[in-house]
This record gives sequence, structure tokens and C-alpha cells, in this order.
Amino acid sequence: MATIKDVAKEAGVAVGTVSKVINNIAVKPETKVLVENAIKKLKYEPNIYARGLKTNRTNTIAVILPTIWNPFFSELAYNIEKCLRKVGMKMILCNSEKNKESEIEYILMAKQNKMDGIIAITYNNIDEYVSDNIAFVSIDRYFSNNITYISSDNFNGGKLAAKKLIESGCKNLAYIGRGSKIDNATRKRKEGFIRYCEAKNISYDTCELFGSQEEFEILLDKFIEENFKDNIKIDGIFAVTDNYALDFIKRLEKLNINIPKDVQVIGYDGMRSCAKDEFKISTIRQPIELIAQESVNALIDIIEKKSVKKEIILPIDFIKGYTTK
Amino acid sequence: MATIKDVAKEAGVAVGTVSKVINNIAVKPETKVLVENAIKKLKYEPNIYARGLKTNRTNTIAVILPTIWNPFFSELAYNIEKCLRKVGMKMILCNSEKNKESEIEYILMAKQNKMDGIIAITYNNIDEYVSDNIAFVSIDRYFSNNITYISSDNFNGGKLAAKKLIESGCKNLAYIGRGSKIDNATRKRKEGFIRYCEAKNISYDTCELFGSQEEFEILLDKFIEENFKDNIKIDGIFAVTDNYALDFIKRLEKLNINIPKDVQVIGYDGMRSCAKDEFKISTIRQPIELIAQESVNALIDIIEKKSVKKEIILPIDFIKGYTTK
Repeated sequence: MATIKDVAKEAGVAVGTVSKVINNIAVKPETKVLVENAIKKLKYEPNIYARGLKTNRTNTIAVILPTIWNPFFSELAYNIEKCLRKVGMKMILCNSEKNKESEIEYILMAKQNKMDGIIAITYNNIDEYVSDNIAFVSIDRYFSNNITYISSDNFNGGKLAAKKLIESGCKNLAYIGRGSKIDNATRKRKEGFIRYCEAKNISYDTCELFGSQEEFEILLDKFIEENFKDNIKIDGIFAVTDNYALDFIKRLEKLNINIPKDVQVIGYDGMRSCAKDEFKISTIRQPIELIAQESVNALIDIIEKKSVKKEIILPIDFIKGYTTK
Repeated sequence: MATIKDVAKEAGVAVGTVSKVINNIAVKPETKVLVENAIKKLKYEPNIYARGLKTNRTNTIAVILPTIWNPFFSELAYNIEKCLRKVGMKMILCNSEKNKESEIEYILMAKQNKMDGIIAITYNNIDEYVSDNIAFVSIDRYFSNNITYISSDNFNGGKLAAKKLIESGCKNLAYIGRGSKIDNATRKRKEGFIRYCEAKNISYDTCELFGSQEEFEILLDKFIEENFKDNIKIDGIFAVTDNYALDFIKRLEKLNINIPKDVQVIGYDGMRSCAKDEFKISTIRQPIELIAQESVNALIDIIEKKSVKKEIILPIDFIKGYTTK
């Protein structure tokens, strides 16, 4: 089937000029004739919508994430859209607010609208809706052997955080974090952290909960009471995300604890609120651009029925900010 | 034409169950029969893609903005998607990076893909592409009498900033800001600010440029050299956006100037990096939720050929942060 590029070549004009003719935007009359003749000759079908019915491709991808109103997800979505655009695909943005029903609704919507595929960050039990009948790439969450999932190297990220805290002088470490009750790749951050502490014979504690934010905060209050109130028993913290790190830092500062003099803190993600923003806290940086690129590559391979690795783990980096020495 | 709701009602099942049947997800065999009979009876056409050809509606909207990787735009996009979703429409995210060619390409893409409309924040000279042949709502930028545009009350926002600075004790004010060379609604912030200063006989200065960031920074260096280096001649600053305010605060802090003791600063936007983030600097808050809602309402009215106001100006608020007394 002829493409817009073929028409442009045949007519000897730019692709943008063909677009203009199709969309009834004024061009020189003689140019219009050239383009129209090329369209006729090549039987080019400019109605992409109608073409979707023939090719069974709509070039639209649903990207499901908890909320775009978050620096990490907006950087990720920004990069996914950029990658999709390079290959002529469009991104449908879906904010699930971590709500299971919304996630299911978006998946059904993608199928009903004959979208070509889905890239999703989900933490709910929606396995029965994630099936082979639509191309699907999962970020940070393992579903089954059939579904490709992509994540940063959470395990080595956790190890690296422990290593950096120890290298900068910490003696007593702790991991803090809350997570979804459904297993997901982010849990490996703690596993890597513990593995490193045990290998190096460093004492560590954990303050962790799989459940609601309210429950976690009760646990966290108790943890701070025991370890920071009267005297400081822990001098190195690894938090499951930058947001948890920032929240924890605020709590310590209320107790007049100095960061990084008394307690050093490392987060995970490496989020920045916009491209020109600086990294602030010390953190294990996820390779967001690479995650976006690999997610799009994998999805296209699935759509085109090529073989795709089922697990893609991408390298992390340590970024030094003001919260470590 | 029958909707999925009609089918659900006819079959006596939930909408989600109808979706499942359409998408070949397992339901009880007797339920499947009920749904299939209802589909036949009502001649329901579940292929929305095919249906688009008949109704000439695809229920997709292109949202063009400079970049989603920015707290203000991500909050706006989050709310636009929420409003579109409530009326069964989908959002195609388009990051233009303020690039004129990208904006034009997205507009052509929306037309070619038979999208129902466009909501855009653009600062380039793309007037010839913004025409009546696709529903179009512009945020913060006036195009022509034909195109509906929506913005916060920039003029009264500028007035309110001047008022608040004066009320909290400032004697010598200044406006700082950079803008696009193309006229847009944000310029009214300065106009309102000046109007108030003149009405109250308060001395004011401006440091403003329509051009590149590099040129602006040269101007800003000179402005700071003259007014803050040896002694502080200006004690109240209104910046065109929160980002310019934050950048300016950083520069003053490098000179050991205390905010708000020596100099008070008010920004514009009221951006927060996520829903649970707090407001930090004092700012004129744009009603982002309302801008999103009104943009979607206006766009739908245009699509449905109803009459729509050509200019929709929405109220602003002052939020006190740490940068004013």
C-alpha cells in the first residue's frame, strides 16, 4: 500500500506538502495538481482511520500509569511519547490513580479501540485482563512468563545504596519503604540492600509495610521514636523511592537531626521535576530514557510478532546529592 | 445508535460484563448468550474504530503542550485527561518542546487521524494551521476571533501580586519575565502589575525580554548587578512564572540576600510536583482544574456545533508561601 512518502516522491514535493493537500490547506495550484495526480496514480488512501480497518494497525498505544502528575512518571511518559513519535505512533495517556477498576477499564478501552498495544505500570491484581490478545509491556511488574517486563536493576540498586552508605562512613543502616501487596520488581531493592549488608557483616534494620499509607505512617512513627528520638541509633537510610526519602528527611529535620552530618539518606528513582532541574538528594537513578526506549522497542517487536526477551533489566547509577557525605 | 450501556441494560448485566464478552474474556456461558442476544437485537456495533467511520467521531483529542515533564503541564494534562475520560474521550499526548514544526505536525496528525479536536498551549506563529476544519481550543494564547481561548485572569493576577507585595511592606517593586515573541495572554501579568503600581503611585522597574533564555540571562545579570549587588534597591519582585521566581531566588541567595526579610518574591502558576506536594513560594495560583474542565467543555461544545464563548477568563488566587512576609 502506498504511503504518504511514496506520494511525496512521486509528486516531487515534501511530505508536509502532501499533508497540506490532504487537509485542504492552501498550496500553489500547480503543486496541488501534482499531489492529487500522485495520490490517484498510487491509489493512496489518506484516511488513516479507514486504513486502520484494512491494516489492523491504528498506530496508537495506551500508556497506563498511576498519574502523570508526578515527576518520575511525567519524565517517563515524556520519553515514551518521544520514542513512539519517532516511529509514527501516538500515545494515549491513561491515569489510573492506582485504581484496579480504572486499569481494567483502560485495558478494555485499548482493545475495543483496536489500539496496537499497551505499556503499563500497574500494581494491582489484573492478570486475567493482561493476555496475549493485545501487545503488552509491563514496567516494574512481573505478570507471567508470557508478558514482557522491563525494570531498572532494582537488586543491584539496593546493593549499591548499601555500598555507598557504608563507604561514606555509616555503621548502622536501615531500609524504609512501603509497597503494594502484589509482588513487583521494586521489592528487589530491599533484597539487594540486605544481601550487601549481610555479605559485609553490617547491622541493618528494616521498616517496611505492604499496605496502606496510613498503616505505614504509624509504623514509621514508631521506628523513628525507637531509633532517632533520644539518641540516634541509625546513621544510614535507604528509602524505596525518592519520595519516601524526602518524606523521611522532613521527619528527621523536625527532630533537629542534621542531614547528612548525623544521618545520611539515599533514595531511588532520580526524579527531577523538569529537564533543567538538578538532582537534589543522593539517589539510585533509574535510566528513564532507556526504560522508555526499551519499552517501545519491545512493544513494537511484540506487535510485529518478533521474538522478545521476557525480562529486560536495565542498569542503574548512583547520583550524589546533598544527603550523603 | 445503541451504546454499550443499552446492551448492558437489555441483557441485565454490568457494562464491564458486556466489555468482557466483546473482548473474548471468559464469562459464564449463560451470561454470554444473554449479551450476544442483546447485541444482535440492538444491532450494537462494538468495533469503535469501524463506528468512527460512520459517526465521524473518534472520541480522541490531541493535547499539545510544550512538555509533559513539567509540574504545571503535568497537573494540567492530568486534569484534562480526567475530564475527557468522564465523557468517554481519550487524550493523545503531544510534547511539542515549543518547536513550531512539531506543533504543525501534531495538528496535521490530528486532522489526518480524524481526531475530534485539539486543546493546545502553543507560543508559535501557527495561525494558518489553526482553522475551522478541526475543533480547537487554545490555552493562554489568542489566535483570532474564531478560535476559543481560555486563560487564567492574568491581568488581575498581576494586580494582585503588586497589591500583596505592597501590603506586606515592599516599597520598590519590579517585574521580571521572559516571554515568546508572539503575543500571548501571559503578557497581561505585567500589564496588571504596572497598572496597580501606577494607580498607587508606587515606584517599579521591569526586567523583561521577548527572546532567547540566553539573552534574558544577560539582561538579568545586569539587572541584579545594578539593583542588588552593593545595596538593595528593590524589595519586592513579581516573576512571570514560579520557575522564573525560583531561579531569581537562587541568584539572590548567592548574594546572601535573605528571602523574605530583604526581598519578597511572588511567582505565578502555583505549581506543585504532585498532588500531595505543598505550595512553597508565594504565588498567584492558576485554577488548573477549572482550566482543564472549561477547555474540555468548550471543545465538546465546538464539536457539537453549539455556541461557545470566544474568550474564557478564569479567576486566580493568592497563595502565601515562604517568600513573602
